This record gives sequence, structure tokens and C-alpha cells, in this order.
Amino acid sequence: MGGDFGAAVIIPGAAIALSRHPDAEFLLFGDSAKIVAELDRHPRLKAVSRVIHTDVAVSNDDKPSQALRRGRKTSSMWLALEAVKKGEADVAVSAGNTGALVAMARFCLRTLDGIDRPALAAIWPTARGESVVLDLGATIGGDARHLVALSVMGGALASVLFNKPRPTVGLLNIGVEEMKGHEEIREAAEQLRAMNLPQLDYIGFVEGDGIGKGAADVVVTEGFSGNIALKTAEGTVRQVTDFLRGAIQASLLARVGYLLARGAFAALRARLDPRKSNGSVVLGLKGIVVKSHGGTDAEGFASAVRVGYEMARYDLLTKITQTLNRDGGALASEPVAQEAVS
Amino acid sequence: MGGDFGAAVIIPGAAIALSRHPDAEFLLFGDSAKIVAELDRHPRLKAVSRVIHTDVAVSNDDKPSQALRRGRKTSSMWLALEAVKKGEADVAVSAGNTGALVAMARFCLRTLDGIDRPALAAIWPTARGESVVLDLGATIGGDARHLVALSVMGGALASVLFNKPRPTVGLLNIGVEEMKGHEEIREAAEQLRAMNLPQLDYIGFVEGDGIGKGAADVVVTEGFSGNIALKTAEGTVRQVTDFLRGAIQASLLARVGYLLARGAFAALRARLDPRKSNGSVVLGLKGIVVKSHGGTDAEGFASAVRVGYEMARYDLLTKITQTLNRDGGALASEPVAQEAVS
Repeated sequence: MGGDFGAAVIIPGAAIALSRHPDAEFLLFGDSAKIVAELDRHPRLKAVSRVIHTDVAVSNDDKPSQALRRGRKTSSMWLALEAVKKGEADVAVSAGNTGALVAMARFCLRTLDGIDRPALAAIWPTARGESVVLDLGATIGGDARHLVALSVMGGALASVLFNKPRPTVGLLNIGVEEMKGHEEIREAAEQLRAMNLPQLDYIGFVEGDGIGKGAADVVVTEGFSGNIALKTAEGTVRQVTDFLRGAIQASLLARVGYLLARGAFAALRARLDPRKSNGSVVLGLKGIVVKSHGGTDAEGFASAVRVGYEMARYDLLTKITQTLNRDGGALASEPVAQEAVS
Repeated sequence: MGGDFGAAVIIPGAAIALSRHPDAEFLLFGDSAKIVAELDRHPRLKAVSRVIHTDVAVSNDDKPSQALRRGRKTSSMWLALEAVKKGEADVAVSAGNTGALVAMARFCLRTLDGIDRPALAAIWPTARGESVVLDLGATIGGDARHLVALSVMGGALASVLFNKPRPTVGLLNIGVEEMKGHEEIREAAEQLRAMNLPQLDYIGFVEGDGIGKGAADVVVTEGFSGNIALKTAEGTVRQVTDFLRGAIQASLLARVGYLLARGAFAALRARLDPRKSNGSVVLGLKGIVVKSHGGTDAEGFASAVRVGYEMARYDLLTKITQTLNRDGGALASEPVAQEAVS
């Protein structure tokens, strides 16, 4: 029921995902009348799907606490998460309310040992391919231990998604050498260097313009600055493409030139297509949860399913827990970070 | 002597600035042999300039504390700031080391009453024109009072640069309704709303993608997230334009189209030209200091001079101090923020 369009996008999106991952099966939670109406158009999907009816849906306007109060045990969001908890599903994919999803997932699935708070990770298109960037706003602030845990989780995600045994990891920081404040970032850097984990290659600090350069496979920061970076980049892409469109429309010659160069513009659009990198991952939970953009289309939703599919197939959770528990759980932490949602 | 090219860019830049502001006069601090060699090519500039020789220059690699130790009282950077302090200059413009400039400016000029730490403000090109964004990294963190002071200073700067008597001001924040952490942002919002200052129109929170939309004339945040936002946006512009260039070069038809549309591309480049918005302002000091990008050319340096010229001409400092001291100095604060440079 999630996202701006509900079943009208989710079901066709699942159908696309099925064509790419023919061994997938689907549990579809929500208003069965709406779901079945869509499902009837996709017989192959229908054959591998089970519909679980519920009248209750978390709305985009619900605050996380409201969603938990109203939708616990009953909403489509909760039931999907519970299916993961019970082992009936390998992955939960939702296009619904982000804050509610993070809060419910944390409540329903619980965090991994050594992890206090969940994180949201995105796949960010870069000059060199793609990088994982986290945390995008699930948790505000946090100490060095939290940043190390984010590095471990992001590294495991990158190794699964990009098929790299030892992805590079950088900590987002600003360029002032002797800054005071944010000692936790320098402390995390020291810890990562001292640990010298076989699963990830810590390469140092990355500045804001390093994300798009692909300076590291994984860029780690706490949720406030991560959210600011993501949204600022999204806004900047829109701004540049709007400028370009305006400049082309302002002249006849430029419009003719645009027609000739339209292949190049299509390639640019494809490179920047937000649907391709759709699918943020809620990390740090005893279960795999993927958040799709609410405004995406079927193609974008299929990308989110792909992210979840690969995480399940390449056993992301085991990779994360093994790293967290190495050296007798040296990474296990006391409560450190502030909650983003309550 | 500052920046990547020293006098070879600064002097021609000053000459361009003089052609735009014929009543300007220049004090030029540094190696007089190098300065005079350049100055001889610009006789009109030479006629309104005075050269003050010093052998000592702060280097781009100097840490702020090193720069203060080595360059206090003797370096070209210090002497330029001291000229402002003594009233011999209205503005100091430097293309040198940012951290050193902020630290030296603070040490030499001192902060305004009610301001604990300086801030760096940039002029950010938006879909609607330009906005002021601050702090870009002079001060990490800070409480609600610090954010209110940034709002007042940014508002005064916007009113001078954009000629708006009551510019709109927004606080940079993330979209999670019930987030915990960063209570100082919500507290600052309450204070700004309660104060209802005649000099600025507080419009609420702005998310990362709101900066480029021009959601507010002034976007306020502490220095860490401000620096991340600025550099992420700069990196994203480079990434999109690189993608576009690559796509056009990949096909003959696209290259022909590009030739026809080159006017549009020139317009795009002009819109995104970093030289036009060159010139960050060090705010919060008893004097006006402008930081030019170190890598800019003469045209870019002239833009930085323009920023300083307008601030002096429209009496930015008086506007800021009047607002800070209104209601008997209700904004005067105790020490609150952590230092970015030491």
C-alpha cells in the first residue's frame, strides 16, 4: 500500500522484478481487493504470490510514533516486517513512510548485537560507478563506535552489491585540518586503522565533493549530514538539468542541436536516472528491509526489489554479524547515539 | 600573495574590479618586486594603489596555528587585516589559506559583541537567483543562540547583496518530523519566530534540496553540515557536466548537435560559473573580510572584490550590529560553539 501510488506501482514493479529474478516469490500485504485487481494483469506474478489482507495502512503523514501506535501488529507495513522476523520472507520492501518504516523495523526486528540504532544506506551514482552512502537520516549524531559500526555495515553492503571482497571505506569530513568538534570522526578513523579489518579497506577522510568522484566505495557519516548531503545532491542535479533545459528551449538553433544530440541527453538521463539507484537499505536490524522512494514507478520499485534480492542472496546479514562479532565482539557497544525517530 | 597564482591573478583581478568600481583604491600587501612587476601593466590600477612590502606569506599548507605563530604581525595576510583594523582599508580580500584567514581575522579584528565565533558565508546560485548560505565551516556545532546570530548576520548580508529590505531566512534541517538530536535547530526556530525581527523574515526549515530551489534568501546551518552541503553541491555540478560532456563526445551526431546548441551550453556554463559567485564572507568580525577561491582567475577575484565593495558601501557591519544590539543586546551570548580552527 506504500508510496504515492500503492498497488498500481508495487504490483507491476514486482512483476518486472520477477522477470529478472525468476526464483523470487512474493508476499503482498494490504487491501486484497486492490492487490488482486492489479495481480490479475500479471498471471506469472500471481502464480508465485500470496496476498495477505489488511485494512490498516500507515500513511505518509503519520509520525513514526503514530504509525507504531496505530499500525503495530495490524498494518501492511508491520505485517511485512513480521514476515521477515518469522522467516516467512527473506526481505521486506516498502515504498511507504520512511520514518515509520525505520521505527517499526527497529521495534519488530530488533537491532543486531553491537548495533544500537538502525541506519539508512543509499546507492549513490558516481563518476566511477556507484558508492554506498550512509547514514541518510535514521540516526542523528553518534560516537566513534557508531561510525565504526556504520563502516562495517556499509562495507558489507558494498561487497554484496558491487561484488568487491574488500571495498574502500571513507569517513565524511570537512577540510579543516585542525578543527575542533567532531572528535568522534577522528577517533573512528583511528579505530578503523587500528582494526585493519580484512572485510574493508579504510582509506581516510572524504570531503563532500569526494562522494560524487567515487573517492570510496562506502562513505560514512552520521544521519544529519548524510541527509543534507543526499538532498543537496538531488537538488543540484535537478537545478543543473533545469538550467540546461531552459537554455536549450531559449533558442531555435539549440532546439535543433538538441534533436541531433538527443542520444547524448538520453544517455545523461540514464546515468542520472534516480530509478536505477532506487532502494535505500535499513541496516543494523535482524532482518533485511529496503525502502523504495514513494514517488517512483514500477521500474524504480523493481530496482528496490533487486537490492533486497541481492542482499538476501549474498547473505548480507551473516557478513555483517561475522564482522561485528569478530575478536569476541570487540565492536559490541553501549547505547551511544540519539534516536532519530521515536 | 594568496591563492594558487598570487600577484599574477590578484593584480589583474584588482584591475578588473577597479574598472567596475572606479572609486575604489587598493592597498597591496606582499612581495613588492612581484607586485610592482604586475602593476606596471595596469597603470590605472597603479595610480590608485599603494604597495606595502613584506617577505612573509602564509602558505596554503600552513595550519591555522602555524600561520598565527609565523605570520602574525608580519605576513601579507595579517597586514591586510590590520589595515582594516586601523581603518586604513574598508575591506580585506584574500585568496589565501581559509583556515588561516579565519583564525587570523578573528585574532586581529576580534568578533562583534554578541558573537563568539566567526562564520563563513557563500553566495549560492539557485533556480531563483542567488542565496546566502552559512556557516560553511568556520565553526563546528553551536547552540540555538549561535544559529540565531548566523541568521541575523546572513540576513544583513543578503539585504546588502540582493538589495532586499527583509530577506527570507530558513534553517537547514532534515525531513524527519520527530527526530531527536539537534534540538538547537528547533530552539533557534522558536527564537526567530518569537523575535519576529523587522530585518528578516524567518520562514522555517529548509531541506538540502531547498537550497538550490532558492527556498530562502538565507539558509543557516552550523559549519560541518554547511561545508558538506557546499562541497557535495560543487561535486555534483562537476559530475553532471562531466557526464554530459562524455555523452556528447561519444557520438558524432551529438557533437554536431552540440555545435548548434553551443549558445545554450555557454548559457549553462555562465549560470554555473563558479567565478561569478566567488567570494565567501567571513562574518561576525569587527571588520569586513572576503575569502576568494584560491584557484580562481582574475575575473573570479574581481567578483570577490565586488562582494567586499558592496558590503563596505552598504555598511554591512552597522546593519549587523544594530540588529544584534536591538532590545538591549538580547542576542548577546555566552561562549557556545566549538572552535573550528585553533
